[in-house]
Amino acid sequence: MNIDTPMNPPADFCDAVHWNAQGLVPAVAQDAHSGRVLMVAWMDAEALRLTAREGRAVYYSRSRQRLWRKGEQSGHVQRVRAIRLDCDRDVVLLSVEQIGGIACHTGRESCFFLQLGDSGWSEVDAVLKPPSEIYGSGHE
Amino acid sequence: MNIDTPMNPPADFCDAVHWNAQGLVPAVAQDAHSGRVLMVAWMDAEALRLTAREGRAVYYSRSRQRLWRKGEQSGHVQRVRAIRLDCDRDVVLLSVEQIGGIACHTGRESCFFLQLGDSGWSEVDAVLKPPSEIYGSGHE
Repeated sequence: MNIDTPMNPPADFCDAVHWNAQGLVPAVAQDAHSGRVLMVAWMDAEALRLTAREGRAVYYSRSRQRLWRKGEQSGHVQRVRAIRLDCDRDVVLLSVEQIGGIACHTGRESCFFLQLGDSGWSEVDAVLKPPSEIYGSGHE
Repeated sequence: MNIDTPMNPPADFCDAVHWNAQGLVPAVAQDAHSGRVLMVAWMDAEALRLTAREGRAVYYSRSRQRLWRKGEQSGHVQRVRAIRLDCDRDVVLLSVEQIGGIACHTGRESCFFLQLGDSGWSEVDAVLKPPSEIYGSGHE
């Protein structure tokens, strides 16, 4: 399953999901090759529908209050290979091919680059590409 | 890092986390060996503190409104090998050794056993142990 061969689930497949009071669920994106957990974002029913239909990850941005096609600015699209739901039907898990090998806006492979140790949280993963090269120099 | 050798982070390490309005963050548990995403639950600051101190996953149950030491009933404890935080500091990722190889209350390895296909959501993972054997016959 990828952008070229999207899924074609029944029209009502989002009805099985237990959306929260805001109509959202957390969505975990996991790299299909490395197995790394890349990020956690949120989806509403429309985001999940589009993710399945288009075969690319579409999230709902709570801060911008709109749909967000992952990679729309950065080019770091997530091609979706599989969509899973948990036993409580309130969390989605995507298996993705991460275009560019970078999921995080900081230019790292994964958003989970802070690791807890005896001196607190440390950045343990390298920046693969500076954000200025990803987003242009106007970006922080 | 495991139950026998817990972490010893600074006392204020939870202050760096961006807790939501309810004082919670989602926590993803990933199997350190298989790489599978096992489950997503919630933590408050006390749950995260205890997780680090005890070296086993402690979550906050929103339905029961109390701390929940994973495995307290089932024996399926999660030994925590690493704790990570994402770039927005509002999601925790645990790398765990899943005792018994079962994270889900349905007796499956992972809670994410429903996969979307052209006919909707299907159960694609086997039950490794019936819940009645895990929890006793009184359990559903």
